[in-house]
Amino acid sequence: MSAFLLNPQLAADTTPVGDLALCRVLLMNNHHFPWLILVPMREGLCELFDLNPTDYQTAMQEVRDTAQKFAAITGADKMNIAALGNMVPQLHIHIIARYAGDSTWPNPVWGAGVKPEAYAPDALALMLEKTIQSLALK
Amino acid sequence: MSAFLLNPQLAADTTPVGDLALCRVLLMNNHHFPWLILVPMREGLCELFDLNPTDYQTAMQEVRDTAQKFAAITGADKMNIAALGNMVPQLHIHIIARYAGDSTWPNPVWGAGVKPEAYAPDALALMLEKTIQSLALK
Repeated sequence: MSAFLLNPQLAADTTPVGDLALCRVLLMNNHHFPWLILVPMREGLCELFDLNPTDYQTAMQEVRDTAQKFAAITGADKMNIAALGNMVPQLHIHIIARYAGDSTWPNPVWGAGVKPEAYAPDALALMLEKTIQSLALK
Repeated sequence: MSAFLLNPQLAADTTPVGDLALCRVLLMNNHHFPWLILVPMREGLCELFDLNPTDYQTAMQEVRDTAQKFAAITGADKMNIAALGNMVPQLHIHIIARYAGDSTWPNPVWGAGVKPEAYAPDALALMLEKTIQSLALK
C-alpha cells in the first residue's frame, strides 16, 4: 500500500483541521458556508465503494459523527453530505452546514457561481478551535 | 412508530423500483441522468444522523451496494452520492451515474437549470428491468 498524499487541489482549497482514525478533516476556505471535507487516508480511491468494507464502515461512522457534531456547533438548518468527485478525483466527502437563506439556498453550494471567500484570520481561528474541540481532534 | 409515507414530491418525480430491507428505491423521471433515490422507510427523518445507529449502518450498506451495482449497469464514469434535502425534507439519498460530457458535467445535476425530461416508455421499462435485476429486487 503506497503512502497517502492529499490531492493538491484539496490542499489548496482548505485548511487542515486534524485526523480521525481513517479520515483527514479539512475546513473549506470559504466563509460563506461552514464546510468540512473528510478524506479517507488511503491511496488511489475515487468512489465510496472503492473503500474496503471495513474502511467503508469506519468512514461512514466518521461522516455521521462529524456531521452531527458540526451541525450542533454551526446551528445549521440542514446538513448537505455528498461524495461527488467530478472535478477532484481523490475520494472526499463534503459535510456542509446550510441555512435557509444562505447565498445559494435551497440550491447546492457547488456550481452556483458564488465565489469562495477566505475567512478573516480571527473567524478562521475560532472555527478551527470549535471544530477541533467538538470532534475531539488533537 | 407511525407508518412510512413517501413524500409527495419524491413520488411525483420518480418511478418506484422496489424495496430493499430498509430503503425504498426510486428512479428519477429524467432520462438525462441515470439517477436513483434511496428513501429509508422510517417516518419523520430529515438528516442522515436521524437514523438510529443500526438503521444508519443498514442504509449505508444499501447505498454502497446500490451505487456499485448501478455504476456497473450504467457504465458511469463517476457516481455522485448525496443527501441534501434543502427542498424535500424527507431523508433521501441521491445515487447518480455521471458521464464526462453529460449535460451538466463536471457540475452537479442539481440547480443547473437542465429541465428534467421523462424517459420514453421503452427506455424506462429497460432501465427498470436492468435495475431490478441488478439489485435483486422483487
